[in-house]
Amino acid sequence: MTPPDDASFLREAIQLATASVAAGGGPFGAVIVRQGQVVGRGQNTVTRDCDPSAHAEVNAIRAAARTLARPHLDDCVLYTSCEPCPMCLATSLWAHIPRIVYAASHEEATRAGFDDTPIALTLYGAPSPAACTCLHHHPLPEAAQPFDAWLAKQDRVPY
Amino acid sequence: MTPPDDASFLREAIQLATASVAAGGGPFGAVIVRQGQVVGRGQNTVTRDCDPSAHAEVNAIRAAARTLARPHLDDCVLYTSCEPCPMCLATSLWAHIPRIVYAASHEEATRAGFDDTPIALTLYGAPSPAACTCLHHHPLPEAAQPFDAWLAKQDRVPY
Repeated sequence: MTPPDDASFLREAIQLATASVAAGGGPFGAVIVRQGQVVGRGQNTVTRDCDPSAHAEVNAIRAAARTLARPHLDDCVLYTSCEPCPMCLATSLWAHIPRIVYAASHEEATRAGFDDTPIALTLYGAPSPAACTCLHHHPLPEAAQPFDAWLAKQDRVPY
Repeated sequence: MTPPDDASFLREAIQLATASVAAGGGPFGAVIVRQGQVVGRGQNTVTRDCDPSAHAEVNAIRAAARTLARPHLDDCVLYTSCEPCPMCLATSLWAHIPRIVYAASHEEATRAGFDDTPIALTLYGAPSPAACTCLHHHPLPEAAQPFDAWLAKQDRVPY
């Protein structure tokens, strides 16, 4: 089994996030990795697909579960360009994903107009989950690129 | 606008849940209602579709958003056969659904082997969300039917 290369897989998630903006989607990307291989990729397609559940992480989880032909991803890692929201975290927990690595913090997403704090407060009663030991922050300088691309896009569709 | 008929729409959600078991899915059903009309239906298809996100409520939300061609359902009500899990709640909040009515409690789902308490404890630090005023419990005698059908099914696929 190949040892995890967090920075490399996170860069792929960030590239997907930046490419998503150019494609008319939201500035988020994610990959699911099993034994050193990407088995699912996702971009935020909420407005492109008219689907409020179509965050990058959920799309990547759906893709990986389809690839592996099973709904549980116990042996996989989720790499995501940004700290996952409550929906994406809960989906990851149902999928039994034991490790989630993210680049940008949710404070950085807020700068670009994406604030999931109201949802966290409604559900958690706090900005962060109570006891989610699977979450790991791996900061990278390029983590800001998707949000910069989003803010620079004149015809972006906010949601 | 037709006044809401909670029991009638909940019964439709419960019928979808019972039919889901017969079709090889999980014992959960949901409908999304706008101005007295059903605009989206969902059943639990986690194992049928190999999709950990395919809970009845998420499937109904996706269907309604497709029907209405918009990701936000501010003018809709979600009726679900059972108390929504953290993933379904978070998806409903992203979809801006202002009112959720459910029949069975999550304790009743636990009887049939579906326990989302570990996920709630990880995220909320408690079995229930902190401040979710949109949630309404409307108990009905037939709310147990989908779980009874599930437990009676010899070839059920647990997950």
